[in-house]
Amino acid sequence: MRVIVDAFGGDNAPLEIIKGAAEAAAEYKVEISLAGREAEIRRVAGENGISLEGIAIVDAPDVIGMEDEPKSILREHKNCSMAEGLRRLAAGEGDAFVSAGSTGALIMGATFLVKRIKGVSRAALAPLMPGDKGPFMLIDSGANVECRPEMLLQFAHMGSIYMSSVLGDGKPARVGLVNVGTEDTKGGELQHEAFALLRESGLNFVGNIEARDIPANAADVVVADGFTGNVILKMMEGTADVIMRNVKGIFLTNLRTKIAALLVKPYLKDFKKKMDTSEYGGAPLLGVSKPVIKTHGNSKAPAVKNAIRVAAEFAGKGVIEQIAAAVKPASAEESAEG
Amino acid sequence: MRVIVDAFGGDNAPLEIIKGAAEAAAEYKVEISLAGREAEIRRVAGENGISLEGIAIVDAPDVIGMEDEPKSILREHKNCSMAEGLRRLAAGEGDAFVSAGSTGALIMGATFLVKRIKGVSRAALAPLMPGDKGPFMLIDSGANVECRPEMLLQFAHMGSIYMSSVLGDGKPARVGLVNVGTEDTKGGELQHEAFALLRESGLNFVGNIEARDIPANAADVVVADGFTGNVILKMMEGTADVIMRNVKGIFLTNLRTKIAALLVKPYLKDFKKKMDTSEYGGAPLLGVSKPVIKTHGNSKAPAVKNAIRVAAEFAGKGVIEQIAAAVKPASAEESAEG
Repeated sequence: MRVIVDAFGGDNAPLEIIKGAAEAAAEYKVEISLAGREAEIRRVAGENGISLEGIAIVDAPDVIGMEDEPKSILREHKNCSMAEGLRRLAAGEGDAFVSAGSTGALIMGATFLVKRIKGVSRAALAPLMPGDKGPFMLIDSGANVECRPEMLLQFAHMGSIYMSSVLGDGKPARVGLVNVGTEDTKGGELQHEAFALLRESGLNFVGNIEARDIPANAADVVVADGFTGNVILKMMEGTADVIMRNVKGIFLTNLRTKIAALLVKPYLKDFKKKMDTSEYGGAPLLGVSKPVIKTHGNSKAPAVKNAIRVAAEFAGKGVIEQIAAAVKPASAEESAEG
Repeated sequence: MRVIVDAFGGDNAPLEIIKGAAEAAAEYKVEISLAGREAEIRRVAGENGISLEGIAIVDAPDVIGMEDEPKSILREHKNCSMAEGLRRLAAGEGDAFVSAGSTGALIMGATFLVKRIKGVSRAALAPLMPGDKGPFMLIDSGANVECRPEMLLQFAHMGSIYMSSVLGDGKPARVGLVNVGTEDTKGGELQHEAFALLRESGLNFVGNIEARDIPANAADVVVADGFTGNVILKMMEGTADVIMRNVKGIFLTNLRTKIAALLVKPYLKDFKKKMDTSEYGGAPLLGVSKPVIKTHGNSKAPAVKNAIRVAAEFAGKGVIEQIAAAVKPASAEESAEG
C-alpha cells in the first residue's frame, strides 16, 4: 500500500509527522510519501536523526493553517501540502491519504479534489471512539451540521461497511440512531424519518439509542447529524478530561495518596490507553472516492504511525468499492425520479 | 414556604419520597403537603416509623407511571397524585411543587394545569449539572426537541435569572450557546439566529461554547435546543458512569489495589459527592407560572429532601416575577406585530 502523508498538518508538524511516518515505514509494509516543503522536511529529519530511507517526498510550497478558511484550499492555498497530497491521491499516485491538518479544509479538499463516491450525497467524518468494551464509530462527527434523513441512512451504510470490514470479523455492525429516548416515536422529524429509513435498510439496526448508553457500546455505528455528533464527541472528551484530572489531583493530595497512585499505576495506565483515541489512528472521511484519514490536530508520532497503519487497512479492505455498491441503488432511484 | 410533594412519582415512591419529605419538614422551615393515596402514605409511614407530624396529605386516588402517555395526565390519569399536586399549586394552596415522576407528564401537567408565564413560549427543563468548579445550568435538557431561535433567547433569560437569584451572588450569570465551534459563524440556522439574539440581549453572553468545555464550566447557563441538551446531559452521565466503573474495577483488581483504594477513599468520596447531581436537588421547570422542580426518577430520600429545599428557595427568590418582567417586552412586541 502507498500512503501519502500531509507533513505540514496539525500542531506538531512537521517533526512529529515525519517521525511517525518514518516509524510506520520501518514497521509496516507501506510505501510512504510525505507532502510538504521538501527542504524543510529534509532539514528537520536531519536535525533529529530521522532516516527518510524508502520515503518519497512530494514537494509543496504552501501550508494551510487552522485559522484559514476551508475553501482557501481550492484558491489561495491550492499549493499547500494538503491540497498537493489530495491531488496525488486523486491521480492514483497513492492508495490513501493522512492529514492532521484543518478538518474543514480536508473535507473541502477531499470533496472537490478527490470527489465523492457516485451516489453519496455528503462525506462524513467518522472517528473511532473509546467505548467501555472497545471502539465504536461515530458518524457524522461534524462535517455536516445540517442533515436530511437520507444522509443519515448513507452514514449508517458507510459506517457499517467500514466497521465490519476494517475492524470487525465480517459480522454486521450494530447500527444505532442517536435519539432522546429509545421509543420509535422519540425525537424530531429528522429522527422519525431516519428511523423509518434505517428500519427498512437491511442493516443490523438496533433502533434509537440514548446518549447515556453510547460510551457503554450501545452500538458499533452511532449515527447522528454532524451537530449532534460533534456534541457527543466533545462531551465525551470534556467529561473524561475533567474526571481524569480530578482523579489525578486526588492521587497528588498527600503522601498516602501518592503511595496509592504507585500501587494502581499500571492498571490506571492500561485504562488510560483504552480511553486514548490516538490508538485508533484517527477518523476516516467516509464517502470520498479514495481513503482519507483525519488524525487529531495534536497528534504526535505514535498517533501518526497508527493513522498510516489504519489508512493502509482502509485501502486494503475494499471499503470504497463496497460503499459504491451500497449507495448505487439510491443513486439509480434518484436518476429515475429526476 | 409551602411545598407540595408528589408522593407517588419515581422509582422509589412512596417510601423514599415520604422519608425525604419528613426529613425536610424536620430540617427546614417548610410546610409540606404530600399528594397521593392517603391510606397508603399513612400505612408506609407507620410501617417505617416515619413521623408525619406537620405534614399535610392531599388525597389523590390515581398514579401516573413512566410508561403512561404524558397527555394522559389531562385525561385518564387526571386524578393522579401529580395532577392533584399541580392543581393545588395552581390554586395557591402551595408555593412550589416537587415530583420525581414522569418528566413528560410533569411538563404537560405543569403547562396545562399551572400554565406558562405570560409571554413565555415554551417551558424548559433546566437541570443543574456537576461542573469541575461547581454546578452549571443546562437549559433545555429535553422538554423541547425542536426549537426556534426566540425560544433559546427565552431559555437564556430564564436560566440567567434562576442562576443569579437562586445560586449566584447576584452577579450576572455567564450565558453560553452550545455550538460546534466558538467562532460566530459556526453552526446551523438555529445557532446563527440565536447567536444574534443573544448578542443583543443584554445578558452576560460569553458567545458560542463547545461541548468539550461544558464540564469545565465554560458557562453558568448552557443554552441549547432540547435535543442537543438531552444529548449533553446523557453523554455526561454515560461517560462519567463508564469511567467511574472502570476506576472502581481497577481498585478491586488485587490486594495492592485494594490497599490503594483504602488510602484514597475519603478523597474519592468527596469527588463522587461533587459529581452527584442529587446534591443539587433536581431540575427546575422554567417558564411555568409557579415553581416546579423535577427530581431524578431514581431519587432517594436525600435527593427528595434537597429538592424540597431548592423548591422553597426557588419560590422565595422572586424568580417567576423576574422571568415575567424579562419576557414582557417580547410579548408586548408580539401583540403589537399580531
